[in-house]
Amino acid sequence: MKYAFANRVKHLKSSAVRDILKVVNQGNVISFAGGLPDDDLFPIEGIREAFSSAFASGKKSLQYIETEGYAPLRELLLERMKRKGIERSSINEVLLTTGSQQAIDLFARVMFDRGDVILTENPTYLAALQVFQSYEAKIIPVMSDEHGMLPDDLEYKMKKYKPKCVYVVPTFSNPAGKVWSLERRQKLLQLAQKKHVVIFEDDPYGDIQFNKDEVYTPIAALDDGNHVLYTSTFSKTAVPALRTGWIAGPNQILRIMSQAKQANDLHSNSLSHQALYHLCRNFDLDGHINNLITVYQSRMKLMLQHLQSLESLGVKYIEPKGGMFFWIELDESINTTELLQTAVQHGVAYVPGAPFYVDEPKQNTMRLNFTHSTPEKINEGMEKLTKVFQIHLQSV
Amino acid sequence: MKYAFANRVKHLKSSAVRDILKVVNQGNVISFAGGLPDDDLFPIEGIREAFSSAFASGKKSLQYIETEGYAPLRELLLERMKRKGIERSSINEVLLTTGSQQAIDLFARVMFDRGDVILTENPTYLAALQVFQSYEAKIIPVMSDEHGMLPDDLEYKMKKYKPKCVYVVPTFSNPAGKVWSLERRQKLLQLAQKKHVVIFEDDPYGDIQFNKDEVYTPIAALDDGNHVLYTSTFSKTAVPALRTGWIAGPNQILRIMSQAKQANDLHSNSLSHQALYHLCRNFDLDGHINNLITVYQSRMKLMLQHLQSLESLGVKYIEPKGGMFFWIELDESINTTELLQTAVQHGVAYVPGAPFYVDEPKQNTMRLNFTHSTPEKINEGMEKLTKVFQIHLQSV
Repeated sequence: MKYAFANRVKHLKSSAVRDILKVVNQGNVISFAGGLPDDDLFPIEGIREAFSSAFASGKKSLQYIETEGYAPLRELLLERMKRKGIERSSINEVLLTTGSQQAIDLFARVMFDRGDVILTENPTYLAALQVFQSYEAKIIPVMSDEHGMLPDDLEYKMKKYKPKCVYVVPTFSNPAGKVWSLERRQKLLQLAQKKHVVIFEDDPYGDIQFNKDEVYTPIAALDDGNHVLYTSTFSKTAVPALRTGWIAGPNQILRIMSQAKQANDLHSNSLSHQALYHLCRNFDLDGHINNLITVYQSRMKLMLQHLQSLESLGVKYIEPKGGMFFWIELDESINTTELLQTAVQHGVAYVPGAPFYVDEPKQNTMRLNFTHSTPEKINEGMEKLTKVFQIHLQSV
Repeated sequence: MKYAFANRVKHLKSSAVRDILKVVNQGNVISFAGGLPDDDLFPIEGIREAFSSAFASGKKSLQYIETEGYAPLRELLLERMKRKGIERSSINEVLLTTGSQQAIDLFARVMFDRGDVILTENPTYLAALQVFQSYEAKIIPVMSDEHGMLPDDLEYKMKKYKPKCVYVVPTFSNPAGKVWSLERRQKLLQLAQKKHVVIFEDDPYGDIQFNKDEVYTPIAALDDGNHVLYTSTFSKTAVPALRTGWIAGPNQILRIMSQAKQANDLHSNSLSHQALYHLCRNFDLDGHINNLITVYQSRMKLMLQHLQSLESLGVKYIEPKGGMFFWIELDESINTTELLQTAVQHGVAYVPGAPFYVDEPKQNTMRLNFTHSTPEKINEGMEKLTKVFQIHLQSV
């Protein structure tokens, strides 16, 4: 039987990252492809105890709850966001979601009719692009440099396209590993306020910050409370399997998103909400994050050493200040999508950069993850990648 | 700031059931309104042990997994469905979802463009109606009697409206508590096969069957494998908080739904998948379900006694053969939505029947849940409801 699907299905593609992961996970390949945290560092004892505490509160902990999620965890997230300067008035301005992915999806669902415009960085988080495409929004990329979106281009495109929203990952962006300057954050906010445009600030990596002396103020912390939706997740700081993210913003928008969530899944896994509440209360999550930072930074530095030795082959990169990724640019003659097959044959995988672009993809780019592999695997994988580069890149 | 939402937001309404629950839960009201299982019966020890087993498998249990969900649980669900006669060829035909609500939502997302037609019973599960409306599908109700949809009306509407899908809850339907006859199941399937229409069979309550001697064959078990999507959940048999449902059907459709799920939330809570796997393997879930049936049936019988004594006031109902609900019809002069306020003042709540209708709601209907209240509360609540009826209904 042939099935007739909705039009929006045309825009749904399986994520390149996840498809590659499927293949790579089956073989003996060292993968820098995924966006995975290192499971060896998962605080499994803390989480086990957190679940014990949740169970100790009795059978009611296993009943249906309200769509917005477990209230004490939302209360606690208000506190944690406050430490970053983000002030929300009450838990009615926090919605718990199944990972921050669902926050992006619910936002798009309540916001975009076909053809509505959203501005994004380019490249940007590809699963966000997939969501916006699936609701048939029109995605317009804004030009950026290493400090963030270029104000002139942003202003021009706000005027020309009248977007409903600007989607940004300003702190340790995925894939580019970039940090926006304070000036660029302020400029974006100022334009958004002037033009009545909503900013969607996606901050999954903000806590993985290598240099403690620097301050990267969330755009949500600069706002008057009306223009920024801020989303983050426990997937990178605690564990991914609990699929717990959240979104904070004006109640007018969250109320509608909550109605959409009710249709989507009634509510997220509330036993996990309770466990995460106990984890934050009884386990030193901030100390754990500091450990993660130490380990991840040393892995980044190790990968950096390998990349430095590749500069002679024209390999370009910026040293990340946090997050999980190196963004690499090779000679323009190289197509990293084509090169991937060869790399996998040599026993190493990465993500080609092209799918992260809204349009005009730079085919000579790739993303390397430094958090999931041990130092040994980083050395081994980078040696394999070096071999591939030596064969396919000419010295500059 | 005024925000501009998508058109589909107009179709999103907060569920009447959940809004009532919010109010009722704050007060001292006995509620027959929700669709809640009794938390006193939750197998908390079994679930606690199941989580221990999941944790015992180590830190990898907390990592990201594939969108389709934890493979061994999908394998196990193949077995459990086989016992009902539903044969699927592999785990590629099973997708784990955040409750069966998400299965309905993902299906609608990949299936309906604005104006595409879906046939449903009338009344039917209101949160399914909300989903279909939110994707701007055109919902056409089919006439039913106590044995299921009327074949003539079904055939007429299939011809006239060329639906993409028929949505049914054939076993202990919500809200009507009805069981379709085998003949009506076969007739629906035969028409769907002839007209190349997909049947979406929603079966959250099928396991809560009071009379063990009767057989209610799922429509999916009668099919050639191409025309029926079958969804169910652990929310009524194990616990709701783990938000684990599943959908089984042709891989061609599930593959697309899985891509939609990837955009929606990457994957559902996989620690819970693992725990539910261990629960099914190491805990006597079927024995537990038998206990539930015994308790729920005795509560149904108790509520039945009260309803029998109300027949003189023109109160009509059918004794449910399973599930969680009585569906009540009062004299046509009564509007149960208006009466609810009075009932709550008397200390008892129900769900008015109107929101369960696609159109032409019978304002004199209501749904009563008999699973969530203890026998004492059922007696107390039904006495209060009787008082309300005695004031507002005239003897017949």
